[in-house]
Amino acid sequence: MRDQQITSILKQMTLEEKIAQLLQLATPFFKGSKSQGEITGPMAEMGVSEENIRNTGSVLGASGAKEVMNIQQAHLKDSRLGIPLLMMADIVHGFKTIFPVPLAIGCSWDLELAEKSAEIAAHEASVSGVHVTFAPMVDLVRDPRWGRVMESTGEDPYLNSEFARAFVRGFQGKDLTKDKTRVAACVKHFAAYGAVEGGRDYNTVNMSERQMYESYLPAYKAALDEGCEMVMTAFNTVDGIPATANKKLMRDLLRDEWGFNGILISDWGAVKEMIPHGVAEDSAEAALKAIQAGLDIEMMTTCYVDHLRQLIDAGEVNESILDEAVVRILRLKQKLGLFEDPFRGADIDLEKEIILSENHRQAARELATKSCVLLKNDGVLPLNKGLKVALIGPFAQNRDILGPWSWLGSKEEAVQLYDGILKKVDSSHLLVSNGCDIETSSPKQYEEALKIAENSDVIVLALGEHSGMSGEACSRADIRLPQAQLDLIEKLKQAQKPIVTVLFNGRPLDLHGVIEHSDAVLEAWYPGTEGGAAIADLLFGDANPSGKLTMSFPYSVGQIPVYYNCFNTGRPPAEAKDHYFSKYLDIPNEPLLPFGYGLSYTSFSYNNAKISGTPMTHDQLLEVSIEVTNNGKMAGEEIVQLYVRDIAGEVVRPLKELKAFKKILLQPGETKKVTFTLSEKQLRYYHSNMEFTSDAGSFEAYVGSNSHEVFALPFQLVK
Amino acid sequence: MRDQQITSILKQMTLEEKIAQLLQLATPFFKGSKSQGEITGPMAEMGVSEENIRNTGSVLGASGAKEVMNIQQAHLKDSRLGIPLLMMADIVHGFKTIFPVPLAIGCSWDLELAEKSAEIAAHEASVSGVHVTFAPMVDLVRDPRWGRVMESTGEDPYLNSEFARAFVRGFQGKDLTKDKTRVAACVKHFAAYGAVEGGRDYNTVNMSERQMYESYLPAYKAALDEGCEMVMTAFNTVDGIPATANKKLMRDLLRDEWGFNGILISDWGAVKEMIPHGVAEDSAEAALKAIQAGLDIEMMTTCYVDHLRQLIDAGEVNESILDEAVVRILRLKQKLGLFEDPFRGADIDLEKEIILSENHRQAARELATKSCVLLKNDGVLPLNKGLKVALIGPFAQNRDILGPWSWLGSKEEAVQLYDGILKKVDSSHLLVSNGCDIETSSPKQYEEALKIAENSDVIVLALGEHSGMSGEACSRADIRLPQAQLDLIEKLKQAQKPIVTVLFNGRPLDLHGVIEHSDAVLEAWYPGTEGGAAIADLLFGDANPSGKLTMSFPYSVGQIPVYYNCFNTGRPPAEAKDHYFSKYLDIPNEPLLPFGYGLSYTSFSYNNAKISGTPMTHDQLLEVSIEVTNNGKMAGEEIVQLYVRDIAGEVVRPLKELKAFKKILLQPGETKKVTFTLSEKQLRYYHSNMEFTSDAGSFEAYVGSNSHEVFALPFQLVK
Repeated sequence: MRDQQITSILKQMTLEEKIAQLLQLATPFFKGSKSQGEITGPMAEMGVSEENIRNTGSVLGASGAKEVMNIQQAHLKDSRLGIPLLMMADIVHGFKTIFPVPLAIGCSWDLELAEKSAEIAAHEASVSGVHVTFAPMVDLVRDPRWGRVMESTGEDPYLNSEFARAFVRGFQGKDLTKDKTRVAACVKHFAAYGAVEGGRDYNTVNMSERQMYESYLPAYKAALDEGCEMVMTAFNTVDGIPATANKKLMRDLLRDEWGFNGILISDWGAVKEMIPHGVAEDSAEAALKAIQAGLDIEMMTTCYVDHLRQLIDAGEVNESILDEAVVRILRLKQKLGLFEDPFRGADIDLEKEIILSENHRQAARELATKSCVLLKNDGVLPLNKGLKVALIGPFAQNRDILGPWSWLGSKEEAVQLYDGILKKVDSSHLLVSNGCDIETSSPKQYEEALKIAENSDVIVLALGEHSGMSGEACSRADIRLPQAQLDLIEKLKQAQKPIVTVLFNGRPLDLHGVIEHSDAVLEAWYPGTEGGAAIADLLFGDANPSGKLTMSFPYSVGQIPVYYNCFNTGRPPAEAKDHYFSKYLDIPNEPLLPFGYGLSYTSFSYNNAKISGTPMTHDQLLEVSIEVTNNGKMAGEEIVQLYVRDIAGEVVRPLKELKAFKKILLQPGETKKVTFTLSEKQLRYYHSNMEFTSDAGSFEAYVGSNSHEVFALPFQLVK
Repeated sequence: MRDQQITSILKQMTLEEKIAQLLQLATPFFKGSKSQGEITGPMAEMGVSEENIRNTGSVLGASGAKEVMNIQQAHLKDSRLGIPLLMMADIVHGFKTIFPVPLAIGCSWDLELAEKSAEIAAHEASVSGVHVTFAPMVDLVRDPRWGRVMESTGEDPYLNSEFARAFVRGFQGKDLTKDKTRVAACVKHFAAYGAVEGGRDYNTVNMSERQMYESYLPAYKAALDEGCEMVMTAFNTVDGIPATANKKLMRDLLRDEWGFNGILISDWGAVKEMIPHGVAEDSAEAALKAIQAGLDIEMMTTCYVDHLRQLIDAGEVNESILDEAVVRILRLKQKLGLFEDPFRGADIDLEKEIILSENHRQAARELATKSCVLLKNDGVLPLNKGLKVALIGPFAQNRDILGPWSWLGSKEEAVQLYDGILKKVDSSHLLVSNGCDIETSSPKQYEEALKIAENSDVIVLALGEHSGMSGEACSRADIRLPQAQLDLIEKLKQAQKPIVTVLFNGRPLDLHGVIEHSDAVLEAWYPGTEGGAAIADLLFGDANPSGKLTMSFPYSVGQIPVYYNCFNTGRPPAEAKDHYFSKYLDIPNEPLLPFGYGLSYTSFSYNNAKISGTPMTHDQLLEVSIEVTNNGKMAGEEIVQLYVRDIAGEVVRPLKELKAFKKILLQPGETKKVTFTLSEKQLRYYHSNMEFTSDAGSFEAYVGSNSHEVFALPFQLVK
């Protein structure tokens, strides 16, 4: 029945109409858009015909119920067959209620709240008329120079996979057709965009097939296993071929191996970028390569609409391939119910009611609280509300805390740190000064800051990167804070007051010059709309920090890449007796702060680590348990982590691989036993022939509070 | 006849005798060695039996005619079948007459002198009783953090291949059997050791097969094509399997694909390192994996002698595989004539006569002169011999200029910079002060240096890394000069005298803090025995600098990797109109100094670039020509470089690939026309199916003085 509708439409479509379904254009191209006609620069150079605009399949970046309905209405009026537009947009970490950036969400290790954040984003987006979000971004990241690490949940394939699933569940719900408060998800960037060379955005990716399968692919696969409707290709090459022209990735892997039958869309302009990449001499060749490789929708270039007709006429492209792509696009429109209700979900009244609602803000505040990671605390935190606080730094009174890809978020709606703290202390006890700007400073700024510092009991120092220093196209070769801010800390030491540093940033930083001069450091990332409130809750003990890092903080930029799940090498430093081992002369091999690391205001002890069910067999599960006790005076959450190492594989295996984790709440004095099970399936890996199996032999399970502090429990797997 | 001899010996050998041929032990294990019995630490823990020592096949690190003859004599007395020992040693850039480090030799672009240096090294080694050298090292290098970049000729596959061939010719000559002044060569480290992660020595290597074939394998192949007798495996993993256990690399690629039938030897201890690598649970499994993968000689661990017998008895290893390895070892002994003359070449009188002879020193001086690269010259160089010179810096009077892997070189024999300059200026005009130590300083040192600087006409500032800061196991995460030396420059600026900086180092450095404060910078690398003399020749104009960099100097450590033959990406900075291109926010994408860069005291102009024979066909060569004129007043050598770019490949192609170069000498005012030919063969590359073919289409040839300053000449290839 449903398929008949699609087939019937397809039969009526002209070749031009079909081809234009594969085109995605930005809002200004469309009648009814507020920005209609604002087509300048590269957009103007695209030279899109009126006919193509009339037949276009989807819109990039439309939002707001009124505008979206206007566009759809105008479109349907012009559309010969009444095929509605798909409205797609980048709703990455919140729509208008902005949640922490994904790297921060990763640090919460809280899949439920992550799902909730996506559900709220979907709800706000859907009432604004959006049908599809270009999220989740699940690229595995190991290079903090890359600005887009803030869009990922971190360096671990398993954790990224779990978050990928949570986000897809949150965006899509259980039934996209019935539940109009949800949007279709589009996992990105397929594949391995996180491994761009030198951390330079859009750059070359090179890795072995094994590394890609083992580390980089699992999170995309997890999103698809959860039912994610779409996939976006990456800008980078994979084994020499741009992802957008990569038949091996799209047809062989996604379609044939994984059975994905949803829509494949390019990233912005990526089809035409085959020319600078050097795999197409012109846009006709780019179109040919993209369609042959399996790409359905071309975003913001016109290689398909300009050349597919002649390629089909010349017999170079079979029309059936085009039809398949069109059917996939029409099917999603059908699934979303657009043929029956082209305004799906869009609702001007609901927009006013639910967007930035108290509930939504509360969820954003909760997730921000759980996303912050306490990196250091010499006892100064939590602060007593009676203290006189000098709030200093370029983020003291700064609403640029939403982070990149918070497109529709309004800074005006953001709770800045000053406002958050003002809820905790009397205004007479809160002195404030920026101390310096993000990248520059003046002696006067330093002097003013020092003066209030001297006049206070404690300095809360709000430092970081402005949002233009991370995100897309924002790679940095130096990952320290700007010198102006490092100098500010030096200056403030003169006041001889405790310094509590709060960091707002999008990447792991080299914290030398910060951490050693601070009595406490709270990594707040870009915490979103409710950031200042959440941080204030943590600083004053109304909440207890529980976040843990999901990306290693390097000792310095010269140590990159550094990640916990690396290989042992033949000459690991820990076992070396002499000079000749794998290390640097000038810095340690270990990161400054490891994966899984994060402090609490209370302290947890781990006791009685046990393993049972060894030797493991293919049928029998292993059980690993440990007792965790809250030894402090404050309730707190702890993220208990389980890692495994295969001692000898057919190929080398990581020193540790995260296999499971549990987040538990412990009251003061309370002890809980945490039990994990491990099955043979979790010990499988890609062998030299790319078979995914396990090996009998020796293993170690590790259970503990972070990737470095663990109890080792040896076990055997027998066949 | 010859094979009969081998077969006959093999037949008489016991299993133990065969297995022990596969063992290589260091000198202290052997009777007759001066160091006999000095077996401590890891060596003592090896637990080698007397029987195994008696039957051992080869010796590591023996040299000196007398000692080698003593060891051989004692061995033959004990050897049941009279099988002589192979004497192997690391003769990397000279034996006692030390030439510049290979990275410096690379910068000479002088294949004849490189060959000559290997010939001299072979001659000195052979009269000292050495049969095999563990050289050339031809690992392609892109990461200056790695200490061993000084052992490679650089970042280019073609140039490295040409040097690989030159070194093999120099070591082995035309007929190893007849020419006793030569030694067998052993190319290393197979494969891709230059790509260790994070520049950490011995670390993981990960790359696609295509990248390995395209960039990393050609130089090993070139050495073998030139007849190199042996191959040493690398410490690292390749696609998850340690090179020493890597069947795909050894049996499939080296033996089957390339037809190599010489000896495969492990690097020091690498067989047993399979255990920490995590591909063997114990040394029996390590032995099994190594022999199955095709490794013949195990260096300095005893997995073979401890376990091969039981593996053969158990039927896990076929004795024929052992026999093949033994035959390869016996064949090399036969080829070197050791059965007839076990003391081959060793000659106590010749040792005295030729080692460090005037001829050899002269060759070392010539190569050092050609290896230095003039990085900057604001007109201060060459120096007038009448000037009053303040020679300052930790390398002013320092003989640590031989560089790592100059094992038998004596610092005492090295000409330090002070001695070289003293040949050029009157001693009354040469003031000297170290200014600081390599890594530390004192105010007194700075003051003394400043005093002589103020008293002079020009400062010659000799800075650098001591030899323990580069080479094996000497990775650095910070590639600047130590702060003490950077501070010294700052201090000396107060003297307001011209500063000529001479650098002694083993890796491309981040030269910020050096280059902008110097009026001239001469990169001398570790120049070897005659370093001071060669540099003085250059500083005072008795020689004209002609070297050009063969490894890019990064802008900063955060820019790594940076290399000229990278890919264009889909968003190359040069063509970008807006924010969204592949770059850093804080530094340029370009290296500080590019591949192929180097200045002269004269100036060259390039005119009349021409291309003929286009469109190219499979049969017809293309000709690229250019006229180069010496516009200055001094004769000089220029290295003219030819690059090619394939505009659109099936996979992305490098922005530039070096295809040819010519070094020409031009008198003042002289013009020479340089002509290169290009054939279709030179345009072939590995396609997605790993076929090595060319594509018809658009290309560009570039001819010029370095990888950045070129004339572009488009051409077409037609099928």
